[in-house]
Amino acid sequence: MDRALYVGRFQPYHLGHHEVIKKIAKEVDELIVGIGSAQKSHTISDPFTGGERVMMVSRSLVELDLTCYVIPIADVDRHAIWVSHIQSLTPPFSIVYSNNPLVIDLFSETKIETRRSPLFKRNIYSGTEIRRRMINDEKWEDLTPKAVVEVIKEIDGVHRLKNLSLTDSPD
Amino acid sequence: MDRALYVGRFQPYHLGHHEVIKKIAKEVDELIVGIGSAQKSHTISDPFTGGERVMMVSRSLVELDLTCYVIPIADVDRHAIWVSHIQSLTPPFSIVYSNNPLVIDLFSETKIETRRSPLFKRNIYSGTEIRRRMINDEKWEDLTPKAVVEVIKEIDGVHRLKNLSLTDSPD
Amino acid sequence: MDRALYVGRFQPYHLGHHEVIKKIAKEVDELIVGIGSAQKSHTISDPFTGGERVMMVSRSLVELDLTCYVIPIADVDRHAIWVSHIQSLTPPFSIVYSNNPLVIDLFSETKIETRRSPLFKRNIYSGTEIRRRMINDEKWEDLTPKAVVEVIKEIDGVHRLKNLSLTDSPD
Amino acid sequence: MDRALYVGRFQPYHLGHHEVIKKIAKEVDELIVGIGSAQKSHTISDPFTGGERVMMVSRSLVELDLTCYVIPIADVDRHAIWVSHIQSLTPPFSIVYSNNPLVIDLFSETKIETRRSPLFKRNIYSGTEIRRRMINDEKWEDLTPKAVVEVIKEIDGVHRLKNLSLTDSPD
Amino acid sequence: MDRALYVGRFQPYHLGHHEVIKKIAKEVDELIVGIGSAQKSHTISDPFTGGERVMMVSRSLVELDLTCYVIPIADVDRHAIWVSHIQSLTPPFSIVYSNNPLVIDLFSETKIETRRSPLFKRNIYSGTEIRRRMINDEKWEDLTPKAVVEVIKEIDGVHRLKNLSLTDSPD
Amino acid sequence: MDRALYVGRFQPYHLGHHEVIKKIAKEVDELIVGIGSAQKSHTISDPFTGGERVMMVSRSLVELDLTCYVIPIADVDRHAIWVSHIQSLTPPFSIVYSNNPLVIDLFSETKIETRRSPLFKRNIYSGTEIRRRMINDEKWEDLTPKAVVEVIKEIDGVHRLKNLSLTDSPD
Repeated sequence: MDRALYVGRFQPYHLGHHEVIKKIAKEVDELIVGIGSAQKSHTISDPFTGGERVMMVSRSLVELDLTCYVIPIADVDRHAIWVSHIQSLTPPFSIVYSNNPLVIDLFSETKIETRRSPLFKRNIYSGTEIRRRMINDEKWEDLTPKAVVEVIKEIDGVHRLKNLSLTDSPD
Repeated sequence: MDRALYVGRFQPYHLGHHEVIKKIAKEVDELIVGIGSAQKSHTISDPFTGGERVMMVSRSLVELDLTCYVIPIADVDRHAIWVSHIQSLTPPFSIVYSNNPLVIDLFSETKIETRRSPLFKRNIYSGTEIRRRMINDEKWEDLTPKAVVEVIKEIDGVHRLKNLSLTDSPD
Repeated sequence: MDRALYVGRFQPYHLGHHEVIKKIAKEVDELIVGIGSAQKSHTISDPFTGGERVMMVSRSLVELDLTCYVIPIADVDRHAIWVSHIQSLTPPFSIVYSNNPLVIDLFSETKIETRRSPLFKRNIYSGTEIRRRMINDEKWEDLTPKAVVEVIKEIDGVHRLKNLSLTDSPD
Repeated sequence: MDRALYVGRFQPYHLGHHEVIKKIAKEVDELIVGIGSAQKSHTISDPFTGGERVMMVSRSLVELDLTCYVIPIADVDRHAIWVSHIQSLTPPFSIVYSNNPLVIDLFSETKIETRRSPLFKRNIYSGTEIRRRMINDEKWEDLTPKAVVEVIKEIDGVHRLKNLSLTDSPD
Repeated sequence: MDRALYVGRFQPYHLGHHEVIKKIAKEVDELIVGIGSAQKSHTISDPFTGGERVMMVSRSLVELDLTCYVIPIADVDRHAIWVSHIQSLTPPFSIVYSNNPLVIDLFSETKIETRRSPLFKRNIYSGTEIRRRMINDEKWEDLTPKAVVEVIKEIDGVHRLKNLSLTDSPD
Repeated sequence: MDRALYVGRFQPYHLGHHEVIKKIAKEVDELIVGIGSAQKSHTISDPFTGGERVMMVSRSLVELDLTCYVIPIADVDRHAIWVSHIQSLTPPFSIVYSNNPLVIDLFSETKIETRRSPLFKRNIYSGTEIRRRMINDEKWEDLTPKAVVEVIKEIDGVHRLKNLSLTDSPD
């Protein structure tokens, strides 16, 4: 059986991620989705908590016919232990999908196969763009799955992000 | 909507846990299962990794008609931040099920409702007993859901536990 | 009784901070002063240790007719637990004074009231400006309470800061 | 000027500690009181948070005619850095009062003078005894300064400790 | 080329360790000696710092005709990342010598070969026994290499250990 | 006896470092070489692990007629404990060689003598330049000791660095 890992920050989870995962779903039997930088939240570039992002991803994946594990992964400050860190928090897997050279390099020293992630309109679907739209009261909802819109509404996420954008440098 | 939290170490997940969760499932809309002491593994009392326990629980819960989030929760060394630690890694919840006085006390200082966990034959279903049977080649498989038997087989968990039980104190 | 929290880095504590606290003192019964980024020291922007800043603040506050608690608060790398982190190290409080959007946002999810800090001539009284003057042998002593001048003299702080400003990038 | 350090866990601060500090007060100009194991709380042997203990000590010391700094000190897991850890969080000091051989040994490798703490009826005044009385509804209030009684009342500390004593070992 | 790892606490390094390493030396080309629990010091069972133990081992190994790397290894609180932790701090190695079931189990999931350490009179040569003799003013010097005697003399190690043995439980 | 400390990042160890150490070797009896930022690896500016750098340095120093201790030193996030951190991991030393004002300042508060490091053609020998050449397939081998060339070959270090330079910013 092929169980694969796919990691992202998902600030927030959007249709670009969703299309990538739908493609991966056709190639594997089970999928682990790692919520990267899980310890981060309440900043302009990382507004949502690890748990909020678990909810965004889990609910969006319900429509897929695939066993998924959605797991928050905090950063570690040592790249050399990153692979073990992930393995200790996830079910065993034999494939990792990534386009990040560091990730590819770190897994290259293990028995785990690395595959390039499929690409999907990265110029259109982007967390940075969605956060920009939220701050500027522009329409962002068509860039994410409906489940994500609901989660962000439940946690009043747009309000939080707008607040955080009112920067005032403390001394 | 009622979303609840239930935390356990699940070394391993067994039918006692499973019956408790089935009872909770009737009272709530969504359930978060926290895998406690997620950082521990490879000891006689905590043989399985956080990720292995995520897999045990997730697969066992498939049969329930309930949206579940299964999330590894590492220990923190400061009780006073434990509630925030959990909240940052999980979807928002309004109820916590527990019989642990510390957990009840820590949540009592928040807006979250605490409920006593239902009890289910704790003298029969016990992680300690299951691990003892594994080490002694006794039959343990009827104390856990079938999904757990499969996971422990995939990870060769009984072999690991037996090895760990061959103690040799280093100097 | 109203007990309030006010947090700053205080590198060093200056008359701007002091005037703000004098205004707050009229509105509350007791005040907790948190020394932020307490773990930082020996850099150009954070030259003084947490303990040295405790001494600067404590001695300056003696002249106020107010019960004060001066407490070093190290940074945590997870915003979502920052409120609990502070609460665990301080007496209970019901009000927080801040103009920082992040701080306001983090406390907005609690029962604690947030109030805007009073402002006081921020263009004149500034830690950055004081540190610049120290490095350039300009007069800085009229920007801080006398107690701070004494503390910086006791710890030979100007000498330390000048040394740190002699940058030499190591390879 | 002589500034001294005295460290204790203060679970809770009691009249034994108070008499010791009153004796020390006669020998020094300023006193730093370190709240040890500041990160611990919500257990039977360490029920109160670092911040609650800061409040107990600060209020009890008001009656002394001595400049005091009351500072929470979290444990570090490496004895060899413990002295630096404390020094970074406190005003500079030249004397440490302690009867603990480890503390004496660690400071013996520095320029700081170690003095034996005065003793005061240790068989009567004891944190362990006070906590035992609290759990068993016995009179404990005559073993602590009045300020401590007030703090424990404000935080409902006896209730917390009784709750924590209802042990239920989780599996 | 065969490069091997051997890990011990070495509190202190003694002739038992030394004989084991001499036997290993005949089987490999280069040897990495890991100083385990390197962060511990100044306790009765772990009196010497990581750096002091590096010195004991390095000087004792000079007489061997073997390239050796002596490296302090702090404990990690997660067994599942322990192998990566060691690998990040040491030259690459293909063999590990150990009799500890946990170590053997953790390495069994890697490409690294595990070999049983040779045994050498464990009832005679023991760190516990040496520390006991030091505390009781008995002769211990014939249980360690001469280089270790010199190091312990330089750091006044016996004096430290005796001091630590004067236990006085603080409250 | 004079034992000295010299700390560098050594990404990688090059002939500039080597000449400096050869000069220091004439002034002292024993030398401790600290591998700074030991926890870093697998980035463009810090490609090599602490252990790989231990190997580079140890093998290069074989040709010197000097007792050397080569020890990985992870960063600490608090400058005020940095000296103790190093002292706990190294043999005792009485001299430190450095041109870094922070290092000089931190040691100035101890009994340890600080000496300026000798300089050696810093415009020619530079880790940054060597890494740039590796990425661009230019000749770099004449800037490092031969032992370093061998280590980088054994670990396939140039390949790793090239991979890491293929940046692809994840979202």
